[in-house]
Amino acid sequence: MTLSTVFTRMFGVRHPIASAPMGGTAGGALAAAVSHGGGLGMVGGGDREWLARELPIVADTGRPWGVGFLCWSADVDQVEQALEFRPAAVMLSFGDPSPFVDRIRAAGAAVIVQVTDLDEAGQALDAGADVIVAQGTESGGHGARNGMSTLPFVPLVVDLAGPVPVLAAGGMADGRGVAAALALGAAGAVIGTRFQATAESLVAPAIARQIVAGRGQDTERNSVLDIARGSRWPSRYTARTLPHPYIDQWRDREPELAASSEAQQAYHADVARKVLPPLPVWAGEAVGLVTDIPPAADLVAALAAQAEDALDRARGS
Amino acid sequence: MTLSTVFTRMFGVRHPIASAPMGGTAGGALAAAVSHGGGLGMVGGGDREWLARELPIVADTGRPWGVGFLCWSADVDQVEQALEFRPAAVMLSFGDPSPFVDRIRAAGAAVIVQVTDLDEAGQALDAGADVIVAQGTESGGHGARNGMSTLPFVPLVVDLAGPVPVLAAGGMADGRGVAAALALGAAGAVIGTRFQATAESLVAPAIARQIVAGRGQDTERNSVLDIARGSRWPSRYTARTLPHPYIDQWRDREPELAASSEAQQAYHADVARKVLPPLPVWAGEAVGLVTDIPPAADLVAALAAQAEDALDRARGS
Repeated sequence: MTLSTVFTRMFGVRHPIASAPMGGTAGGALAAAVSHGGGLGMVGGGDREWLARELPIVADTGRPWGVGFLCWSADVDQVEQALEFRPAAVMLSFGDPSPFVDRIRAAGAAVIVQVTDLDEAGQALDAGADVIVAQGTESGGHGARNGMSTLPFVPLVVDLAGPVPVLAAGGMADGRGVAAALALGAAGAVIGTRFQATAESLVAPAIARQIVAGRGQDTERNSVLDIARGSRWPSRYTARTLPHPYIDQWRDREPELAASSEAQQAYHADVARKVLPPLPVWAGEAVGLVTDIPPAADLVAALAAQAEDALDRARGS
Repeated sequence: MTLSTVFTRMFGVRHPIASAPMGGTAGGALAAAVSHGGGLGMVGGGDREWLARELPIVADTGRPWGVGFLCWSADVDQVEQALEFRPAAVMLSFGDPSPFVDRIRAAGAAVIVQVTDLDEAGQALDAGADVIVAQGTESGGHGARNGMSTLPFVPLVVDLAGPVPVLAAGGMADGRGVAAALALGAAGAVIGTRFQATAESLVAPAIARQIVAGRGQDTERNSVLDIARGSRWPSRYTARTLPHPYIDQWRDREPELAASSEAQQAYHADVARKVLPPLPVWAGEAVGLVTDIPPAADLVAALAAQAEDALDRARGS
């Protein structure tokens, strides 16, 4: 038995699991491994060079795969470049998806739009999304500053979306989480942090070990590191990360940090001197459930098997 | 078919659903209705007069029921008074449960301990809890200031608790949420906000209507109203409420509010002049799923039926 949903049937994948298109770490090898494992592997967006390097790796597998872009930073040329590799889906997150929708659909790919509140969900449906990803605030990396948790958020989006399938994102790192997403009415789960700690992820081994050691209650969501590193992320999207000395130093003082070019220069100097790591460790609240660094294809199969088992146990069968 | 779990078998109830022991609003009538409906109805703790008035109402039903106390404020006499009415369970929340455990067990009642992080979960197990309630940060009313969401928190507590059954609390207001809790490995769900909007809840009708109209993304968690009203709640437990003018006025300025007796007096004056409501409207992130004010027994049956249906759909059966 497998868990068949609108999502698995739409994409012809075996399991209702997608890996999140995490910028810089979800490359072609990770997406290929996830798709080989029966999920929908997603490559993170990036510049021309990144796309040219990573997309052939997954496109050559012959399996369904996807690629994700940040609406606030992507340009149509990047999306066009990705579409040349014939992804089954393009996921659009964090901003207005409408400039990209027609091009994606014209290329025969499905439009997946990730949303962080009900207003965004309504806009995504108006824009013609084929699939909605409802991202809860426990997710790792970027998400809504004032968002809802996945558990209460997903059913609201499912009710709003009607026939359009909804995937849950945020807070799931094992098969029990996948099962819970399906119980909420989602057609599948988009999983990020758990796939960072896999053999094919492009995170440095030291980062993968930090994820394995990390605790969810130590993660927090803010804009401190985006401001410190001079990122252009819109301030309505904060990032959930593992603990970081700059967060301890600047917590709840983001406007002050934004106004201090001296403090931002100090951050870059500390990174250059290797006093600070080059990037934050983005991780979600479910990081405490990550205890190993398996091959991603094995992980997909294990997540799916555990999800089936969790549903069978819940149903008492 | 019904959803049989360790929890339903332990208490001899039909459905894996408990109503939260909400102070002031979960009286004997609500608990009785929930227990009549096949759940475990729980009365909120209170003073001698409250207990003497509310507990006989539910004790007379002859069905299993429970009563909840706040560890930081309850005294052993109150717990002893409640035990005279022969509850099936006493739930202990927010603080050290150990002063109460032996008395409860000696009276033949089960000890349910609610926890808001993994440290508290470990302490509850050490104290000998018969059931653990893992409360996520999306819950209404009081909870951890820096807590985790229910979806990632429950599986961690389930793993820690081993054979001790775990109930999920926070973020569930319909049967899909109950189903998700079971999928996560919980033996049931403790539901608060949804039961405020029932015929038997002791909230004023205007408050019940505010809950029906409320949106989860408008709720927020802080200590502003506890400080303003001079409550003795420990600062590590904040409260999630519907929007309130004093929160807009004092957001992120709690230490300043705490230091200003003038501001606190102004709050009480505004309450006395009925410019402000007498109490905050405590509500969880799932409040947006609350759309009516049904009899609580009907609600329990509807939640259970929807949960079964959600699991069957998720399993594809």
